[in-house]
Parts: sequence; C-alpha cells; structure tokens
Amino acid sequence: MFNQLGLIGCGLMGGSFALALKKAGLVKRVIGYSKSPSTVEKARRLGVIDIAAESALLAVSGSDIVLIAVPVAATEATFKAIRHLVDPTVLMMDVGSTKRDVVDAARRVLKERLPGFVPAHPIAGREVAGIEHADAALYQGRKTILTPLPQTNPLLVQRATDAWSAVGCQVLKMTPEHHDAAFAAVSHLPHLLAFAYMNAMAEQPAGQEYLSLAGPGFRDFSRIAASDPTVWRDILLSNREEILKQSEAFRHALELMERQMRDWNGPALQELIQSASDARSQWHLGPKPAASR
Amino acid sequence: MFNQLGLIGCGLMGGSFALALKKAGLVKRVIGYSKSPSTVEKARRLGVIDIAAESALLAVSGSDIVLIAVPVAATEATFKAIRHLVDPTVLMMDVGSTKRDVVDAARRVLKERLPGFVPAHPIAGREVAGIEHADAALYQGRKTILTPLPQTNPLLVQRATDAWSAVGCQVLKMTPEHHDAAFAAVSHLPHLLAFAYMNAMAEQPAGQEYLSLAGPGFRDFSRIAASDPTVWRDILLSNREEILKQSEAFRHALELMERQMRDWNGPALQELIQSASDARSQWHLGPKPAASR
Repeated sequence: MFNQLGLIGCGLMGGSFALALKKAGLVKRVIGYSKSPSTVEKARRLGVIDIAAESALLAVSGSDIVLIAVPVAATEATFKAIRHLVDPTVLMMDVGSTKRDVVDAARRVLKERLPGFVPAHPIAGREVAGIEHADAALYQGRKTILTPLPQTNPLLVQRATDAWSAVGCQVLKMTPEHHDAAFAAVSHLPHLLAFAYMNAMAEQPAGQEYLSLAGPGFRDFSRIAASDPTVWRDILLSNREEILKQSEAFRHALELMERQMRDWNGPALQELIQSASDARSQWHLGPKPAASR
Repeated sequence: MFNQLGLIGCGLMGGSFALALKKAGLVKRVIGYSKSPSTVEKARRLGVIDIAAESALLAVSGSDIVLIAVPVAATEATFKAIRHLVDPTVLMMDVGSTKRDVVDAARRVLKERLPGFVPAHPIAGREVAGIEHADAALYQGRKTILTPLPQTNPLLVQRATDAWSAVGCQVLKMTPEHHDAAFAAVSHLPHLLAFAYMNAMAEQPAGQEYLSLAGPGFRDFSRIAASDPTVWRDILLSNREEILKQSEAFRHALELMERQMRDWNGPALQELIQSASDARSQWHLGPKPAASR
C-alpha cells in the first residue's frame, strides 16, 4: 500500500497506471504534474489525479512511489528537475520503451541516489495518446519488464514487482541491453516498417483510392503506424543500432522472398511462407513461462 | 433467389458464401465439390453443403449459380474441367485475390462461354483456412470487387451484385488491372512484409525468446503472416510485377527513415512518422463512398 503516487507526465501510460493503482486500492492519493497546465487540469477533472503539482519536484515531494511517464527523450531533464528530492529508499520508476538510454541518464544524473530507481517497461499501449484515453485496464494481462542495475535497491525491485503485479501484469527481469535488443526485434522494427509502409502508400498518386479498398488485413498490419510521433522519434533514435541491425535482417529475408518471386520458384517461395506462417501460428499473446534474467 | 449453388472448393471462402447465402434465404440447396473427398464429406456433415458432387463438372450441372473457390493457381484447371457445362446465361463467379490471371485463364478456356463469368474478389478472410472455420458472417460489412469484362453479361453482373449485397457486402466494380494494382498495395505487399518479418525473427538465435516478449503491437502487425502458404504462393507469383513495384516504393520509404536515424535527424524523422501516423489515423475500415470504375 502506498500513501501517495507522484505522477510525472499525465498521459495514456501514466494516467492508466494511476487509475489501475487506485482501482486496486493500492494508493491513497495521486499528485500529478505535466508540462502543459491544461493537461494537469484535465487529469484532475477526470479523476486520474487528485492534486495538481506545479512542478515535477513538487510531485515527488512527500510521495512514496514516483512514476516518470514522459517521452523517453525527456527523461534526463526530468531526473535533473527532481534529483534533489530523489530518495534511494523510495520507489521511482519510468515506463520507457527503451532502457539503455534511460539507465545511462539515471547513472549520469542520479549518482548516489541511483538505488531508488527501478527502470520499468510495461508492454502496453494504444495508438491513441493522451490522458482522455487513460484506462484502469490498460495493463491487465500484459507483461512488464524491469531492468534493475547492480546498484538498485532489491527491496524496491520487490515493491515494483508487487505494484505491476497488482495492476495485472506478469513481471519479468532482464538487463537493459537484453531488453533493448529484444524490443528492437518485436516492437521497434514493426513500428518502423509500418511507418515506412504507410508513407509509401500515402505518397503514390492513387494511394488514397487504394487505401479506400483496404480490408481487415491492412487494418491490423498498419495499426501501429498511427502511434505517437514524438514518442516514436525518441525510440527510433535512442535504440537505433539495434533497430538498424534488425532492419538489415528483415531486408535480407525480404530479398530472399523477392528472389523466389522473380525466379518463379513456387516451391521455394511456398517454403518461405510456410516457415513464416508456422512461426506466427505457434505464437500466443499473454503470460506464459518466459526467460527471465 | 437461386435454386442451386454449385460450390467448387469447400474451404473457408466458399463454405462461408454457401452458409451466408443459405442464411439470407437466397438458395434452396448447395451441391459441393472439393479435390479431397474427406473435405466434401466434412462440408456435408457440417451442413455447409447439402449434396456432395463427385466432380467439379457435376457441381455445375443443374446449378443456377456457381462459385469457384479454389486457390488461384487451380482456377484454369477448374475452368477446363467444367467448360462443357458453363452456360453464358448462368452466373459463375470466383473469389480469387488476384484478377488479371483469373481473367486471362477465363479468356483462354471459356471462349464463347466467357459472358457467364463474373470475376469477383470478396475482401474478407481469416488467418485460418478450411471448411471447419466457415462462417455465415464472414462477408458481413466487407467489400466485394467485381471486375467484369466488356463481354460479361450485364444481367449476371447485376445478379452477382445482388448476391454479394445480400450476404452483407458493399459491391464495387473496376478493371482487373486496376484491381491488381490496388491490392498489390493494400494487401499483397503487407503479406509479403509480414512473411519476411516473421522469417527474420524466427531465424535469429534469440528469436524464440524475443517472440515470447512480444505484445499487442506485434500481434496485430504479424497476424497476416499466419495466412495459408499455398494461397499466398499463388498470389505473390501471379501478381508479382505489381507487388515488386510496391515493394520497391516501400524500400525507398524505409531507407529514407533509416537515413534520418543514422543522421540523428530528429525533426526529419518525426515529420516522416507524423505523415505515416496522420495517413493511418485518417483511414477507416468499412463501406464508405469509394471510387468505382
């Protein structure tokens, strides 16, 4: 049970965490801060936060759990704004989709206060952003990755595990490096491909008419292309080495298929589709035994 | 109202059409044929067809509506098997995802009987195949494209329009060439990309562990990679020129984004994501005024 959640960044991710923690009866009050005063006001009106804080520092003051839910590129500035009140015995987490850059920033800024920070990545989201879409059920049935450092206070890692479990998540632990390599593959690359695909469609003369004919396959494939541009600019930049490595593997697999098409090699093409189809058919969403390191 | 539907190919697409037509009260009985006797038997047991035909020709005999629902590459052989009973005053349709190849085969085989054939492409499907997944609601709220030829009997085009409308589709008409160019863009290319992506994942040493971490974004993006390998081998081959053209445009858009990542050009990268995000946000599935030609 927490007395006060200090929420820095009142958006979809942070707002949903606040609602979920409240719903689970795990927090007495939420004090929230966002760069835009109108967002904070909206969060208060919607009942996502109870008290509006006038600065990030004031949101940390008196809180026994702090969630930083800002675009990844704004994390370092946030650490700087609050570092004087960061207590290495108080749980502080983020929700960033990349972890090496966040951990690097934490090391640079927090120094001896680093043990209080438990880097977190809840694998949830929606192609709409903003506090008005905050949803207590957003994290239900999802996974949350924690990437604690050797210095991280183990008691706080346990509290973080309990908090994410309470809002419905399966909690896994791994290194920041391993996290970033894995998510370049299963999340960042698909986003990059979906963005590029939508741009290729929109730019052709008949693109709009073609799009009017698209069906459910297109709908699902391209859904993530509607994601938030600021958030994804930061992710694509901060994890670019891993993403470019994945993109190269993808382009190699694409060229292999195109070669079979050009060569009119039906059996080889079918074999490639079969292996893709098998790999996808065997996959299932949701908690199941997974490697934890 | 039809007396008898002759169904050639008792799979997901054909079976769903039979069920939907029955449910709409538009057909008295369904006679069905499939290459595999056990499939025909299953279709009869499931009530999708009423009578099992021992050949494609026997399924056509006495039918006043014929639906050819076989993999695209098997269409020409089917035309050959039934041509002696093809009546240019009886509605015959296919459900193929490509139309130029089907129309070419019809021209070659059907000759003076060509006016009876109304090429059709219902934009529906599922990543599972087979008669056991046939569903009367599969076509509800979808679009069906007809690509009639100058020789096609206009009365049959009207009957085809009525039949697809009755099972819940919005019906559009265009040339086979226009159809294939459009679907290379909004359907065939996404499938090719999803296949290549899944293969790139499955082939890397840590692929299985990465996949265990994937979330809802991955789920939707990769769903179509589980599609039927035989069906998609045929589509990727028969429409390869248009698909390779679209793939080239895609690769160009991908390289543009990667260049901004390499150059650490945040503003340019954000602009590219913004245009993709806008294009996708403005798109909506379902019947709405669309170009018809």
